[in-house]
Amino acid sequence: MSTALPAPHLDQLFVQARTHNAWTPKPVTDDTIRALYDLLKWAPTAANSNPGRFVFVRSAEAKARLLNSVAPGNVDKVKEAPCCVIVAYDSEFHDLLPELFPSRDMRSGFVGKPELIAETAKRNSALQGAYMILAARALGLDAGPMSGFDHAALDAEFFPDGRWKSNFLCNIGYGDADKLFPRNPRLAFEDACRVL
Amino acid sequence: MSTALPAPHLDQLFVQARTHNAWTPKPVTDDTIRALYDLLKWAPTAANSNPGRFVFVRSAEAKARLLNSVAPGNVDKVKEAPCCVIVAYDSEFHDLLPELFPSRDMRSGFVGKPELIAETAKRNSALQGAYMILAARALGLDAGPMSGFDHAALDAEFFPDGRWKSNFLCNIGYGDADKLFPRNPRLAFEDACRVL
Repeated sequence: MSTALPAPHLDQLFVQARTHNAWTPKPVTDDTIRALYDLLKWAPTAANSNPGRFVFVRSAEAKARLLNSVAPGNVDKVKEAPCCVIVAYDSEFHDLLPELFPSRDMRSGFVGKPELIAETAKRNSALQGAYMILAARALGLDAGPMSGFDHAALDAEFFPDGRWKSNFLCNIGYGDADKLFPRNPRLAFEDACRVL
Repeated sequence: MSTALPAPHLDQLFVQARTHNAWTPKPVTDDTIRALYDLLKWAPTAANSNPGRFVFVRSAEAKARLLNSVAPGNVDKVKEAPCCVIVAYDSEFHDLLPELFPSRDMRSGFVGKPELIAETAKRNSALQGAYMILAARALGLDAGPMSGFDHAALDAEFFPDGRWKSNFLCNIGYGDADKLFPRNPRLAFEDACRVL
């Protein structure tokens, strides 16, 4: 049976971790990107569907394409970050279920049900994006997730065949702690939780 | 600057962690539930909106109400688990933004935009549900998330005023590792990721 991680590690993952908006020049290497995926991929998704897709935007050329669809308030953050991840999903993820869940037919439950497919893809790629944020922190990186961008414009630019679709963006890198904003409050347990 | 957590902790969070379907009798205490929320609440949401709501279902009476809306394949898992969490969202979360993001008016960007409200609430409560799964593992608990239930029936039973709405369910407790199924495969880096 597992025990709780030591307090400094809980701090690194949750309690002291902050959303970063400014970045040191330290790059995010290919090895780090692979290590990140090799952690996040293990966390759970519905029927092991793994609809999340991850586009790691690092080059100046790809950054320029991305900046065209980013909200004005996020342009500098994305420009400065060593890597911006497009957390996306495969809108036909169910076609891979025979490979991902070989012991049972999970695919036919989705065929011809576009609403169920979209809902499952969005929910589970969001879960996987959250796993990525915490996997980044577990590897000593910082994260800065963002929702402010034009989904249709980004999808047209990066996913012209229409199969992958964007969910949210997340800068990753090594944050400049001197440029953090004051932390906003959180809801009290009594306001967000009920025990029945 | 942070460094990577030691390998045994990465294993506990991601690499060796499994979705559990069978549970030991060890209970999930009030203190553990509070510790879980006190970790997950710090992880990021769009505009610090924190739309996620968490209903911890432990009592036999509340379990019985929940089981009415759970898919047949999930009934035994929910029945046996010491606690099943309804990961929900507040469909009027934006009314709390003046409290949660006091330095700027974030609320008015949502007023009168039901699609943006729903999309933001669903995406960010899913992120918060994923944070909960990893916070549980960080505390030495196991998790078993599930999508198979009747949303409308559950919401009518637990949230009759219509303000909170269900996103997904997640059993938490101390899993019985002897009853794990063989692990399903994951997508290769090349199939799920691109580096640009």
